[in-house]
Parts: sequence; C-alpha cells; structure tokens
Amino acid sequence: MLKIVLIGGGNIAHHFFKVFSNHKSIDLIQCYNRNLDKIKSFEKSTIITNNINELLEAAIYILAINDDAIPEFSNKLPFSNSLVVHTSGNVSMLDLNEKNRRGVFYPLQSFSKNKEVDFNEIPICIEAENEADLNILKVLAETISSKVFKISSEQRKILHVSAVFVNNFVNQLYYIGHDICKKHDIPFEILQPLIKETSKKIEEISPKEAQTGPAKRNDTETINSHLELLTNEDYKNIYKLLTAAIIKTHGRKKL
Amino acid sequence: MLKIVLIGGGNIAHHFFKVFSNHKSIDLIQCYNRNLDKIKSFEKSTIITNNINELLEAAIYILAINDDAIPEFSNKLPFSNSLVVHTSGNVSMLDLNEKNRRGVFYPLQSFSKNKEVDFNEIPICIEAENEADLNILKVLAETISSKVFKISSEQRKILHVSAVFVNNFVNQLYYIGHDICKKHDIPFEILQPLIKETSKKIEEISPKEAQTGPAKRNDTETINSHLELLTNEDYKNIYKLLTAAIIKTHGRKKL
Repeated sequence: MLKIVLIGGGNIAHHFFKVFSNHKSIDLIQCYNRNLDKIKSFEKSTIITNNINELLEAAIYILAINDDAIPEFSNKLPFSNSLVVHTSGNVSMLDLNEKNRRGVFYPLQSFSKNKEVDFNEIPICIEAENEADLNILKVLAETISSKVFKISSEQRKILHVSAVFVNNFVNQLYYIGHDICKKHDIPFEILQPLIKETSKKIEEISPKEAQTGPAKRNDTETINSHLELLTNEDYKNIYKLLTAAIIKTHGRKKL
Repeated sequence: MLKIVLIGGGNIAHHFFKVFSNHKSIDLIQCYNRNLDKIKSFEKSTIITNNINELLEAAIYILAINDDAIPEFSNKLPFSNSLVVHTSGNVSMLDLNEKNRRGVFYPLQSFSKNKEVDFNEIPICIEAENEADLNILKVLAETISSKVFKISSEQRKILHVSAVFVNNFVNQLYYIGHDICKKHDIPFEILQPLIKETSKKIEEISPKEAQTGPAKRNDTETINSHLELLTNEDYKNIYKLLTAAIIKTHGRKKL
C-alpha cells in the first residue's frame, strides 16, 4: 500500500484528499498545512499537523501548495532521500531541493472548491529523476486516473500556458456572454447547448476546421453591427482582437 | 402536415434539410438555391429548383441564406401574404419585405458541414408579427427541438453577439492551445478533459464562480513566465488582454 503524506490546504489538496481517501490501495497517512483550520475536515480520516518536524515517513510527499512556496518548502523539509513531488503545471521539477528524490505529479484540470470532479478523466502528468521513482508515481497516478502521461518539465510549462488559453480565457469569454445576456434579460441557458457543442466538436474535428461565424467569413457588416451593439469598451477590445486573430488564421475570403 | 419550402444551399440549409426530412409531420415540398449543384443531393427526397418563379405554395418559406441576401431575396419573392421567415441571428425580422407575413426561425447553434448535430438540443428562437404565425412557427420548432424560445429581434442580436464570444472566440482559443501543443509535440488530447470540464462546470456554477488560474490569483510571476514562453506576438497580445480582463473582473487580491 502506498503511504502518502499530502501537504497543502487549497483546492488541489482538498481534491487529492478526497480521491486518495476513496482508494483502498492508497494509504493517506498524514496531511500538513501551516493553517490547520483549512484541513480540519481531513481529521476524521487521517492525521493532520502544522509542524513540519512531525511529518511521518512515507513513500511519496505531495506538495500541493502555491507555486512560489514550492522551493522554500522543499528546502525546509527535515529529511532527505525521500520522494518529494509537486503538483504544479508551471514549476520545474528541479526547483525542488535536491536533497530529496524529485518528481512531479501534475493533474491537468481546473479545480473549483464547490465542484466535484471525476479524477478518472483527469490527465495526470508525471515526471521523475529516475525510472524507479517514475514507476512509483505511475502506480499512484493509474490508481486514480485512466489518463497518465510522462511529460517533461519543459512540455509541462507549454501545457500549462495552453491550459490557460483553453480554460481560464475560455471561461472569461463565458463570463462575458453571461454578463451581456444578463444585462438584456436573456437566460444564459439558451447559450449552453452551443457552449457544449463547441467543446464537443473538437473531439472529432480540429479547432481550425470547426470554426464558423462572422470573423471566419470576414463578414464586415455583421462584425460592425456587433461592435455597435457592444457598449462595454473592454468587451469591444476583446471582440476586435479575437476577430482579427480569426481572420488571420483563416485568411481573407477571395471575392 | 406543415408544408415547407426551404431556400438556401449552405450549412444551415443542409442541416435543416436533414432534420425536416427525418420528421414525418413535416412536408418539405421544395428546396430552392441559385446554384442547383449545392442542393443536388436533396433531389432524392424533394423537388429542387433555381427558379424563384417556380416556388410552390407552402405554409412557411424558410430563408436559410446569407444575412446580406435576406432583404433583397424577400423583395424578389413573387407572392404576398405568405409566412416568410429567415434563420439569422443578426438580422431584424423587419428587414424582410412587408408584402409577406414576417417571422424568424433562428437555431442558436454553430453548424459545420462535416459535423452531425442533435437538433433536439438546439434552442430555436422564434419571432413573428402576430400570434397565429408565432404558433405555426412554434409547432415547427417543437417538432424538431425541445428548447423553443420566443425572442425579440433586439434580444436576438444580443444573443448573437454573445454566441460569437462563447463559440467563435472560444474556438479560436482552442485553436491557439492546439497550435502551441502541436509545435511542442504534445498531444492535444491531454487538454480535452479540461476543455470538457470547463464547459460543463458552468452548467452548475456561474462562469464568475468557476474561474481559476494565474490571472484570477493575480499571480504575476506565473503570468510573466507564460509571456516569456509565448513566442507568437499575436498570442502574447491575446494573453495580455484576457489576463487584464480576468484581473478586472475578479479584482486585485489584497495582500
């Protein structure tokens, strides 16, 4: 049974706590957080601590903490030669202190506190300094997910920036659509089938093939009527920039 | 049985042809297109024509043609007092010639030629000049879809611009993610569960609540490392503008 110590009290730590607790082959022996209040609820099924010197011996120490806290926290760990991994998309494996065996256990998903996720569908990107450690991480990853990828630190950074485009930025566009509808008493629900279809389409055809709409057609009349309709200057600027991007991607239509 | 004449040879006309042909209570008696080649395949189940003077008598004439062609085509129709509707999100009902009874039959979905759609899930926005015609459109709409909404011309324009944000612009962001991954030999499939989850999340919580990531956290270090990683100037500009928008929406984190 894999003995795990989980470090952190944020979204990712909470989701890992849940999924690790649900699998019998994983032994979550301890959770650490500076602020114990944030992991108080973990106490019913594991040991919690806010004292780094009380960390128990484990097969893997998982640092589910903020990116900028990772190097310093790994420096402070009062042991060496253990397998210590972080869960960040944007931090190199080598930013962990080399006194321990280093690795990465990065779940490529966006975690909100109030939204359950199906871990089985979440790609886990793993990396380690040697094959043996990679295999330990693989065992853990495959226990909770059916999508496990070996990804280098460099590729992971690229993945992370791509994820910002297809997740955070996409979500901001949803927010704008939501906001515009709300201001005109239109239920946002009308847009949801379109949103779903747009995201499903690219499982079958490439995003380039999937594109439609006024910008792709270079339909200046519609584009201008939309710009007239938009009263919010920020929305107008986003409309202009993304329209220009689509026109550039698809080329101007020949008359 | 509702007698329908369908005008047009583009994506929407092709999808309407399919769904109308599949419903026994709809009698698609004729299809018109200027260029007969584009609707040649319709010939096996209905009459096709490219002669506007040969249009048969029907309960509804559906103009599934380009926005800018709608007014002129409706002027040229060689009959009056029939129910003539267009299928555009961005054209007023009143842009149709008033010699006929006017209406709108707008399916809020993005149609690609090579991608099948489930019409039952597509919201149909209907509008007419009087209750009787609205009811005729309602019967037709409810035959093919479970989501039928009465939407005014003004609301429809707002919906259309919102749809550009949540569909065309979102798809362009998918394209950028796809392009960045491709250039670094990372399979785009790794991002698909995240894309799916991002679009599903907002069925349960609002897009504002659903937001995560470096911009929401105002995590300047990650933002700057992403900007360094992006070599494409256009992608950089989109990254900057959308990051600023998210920071503005969520406010700066207090230290």
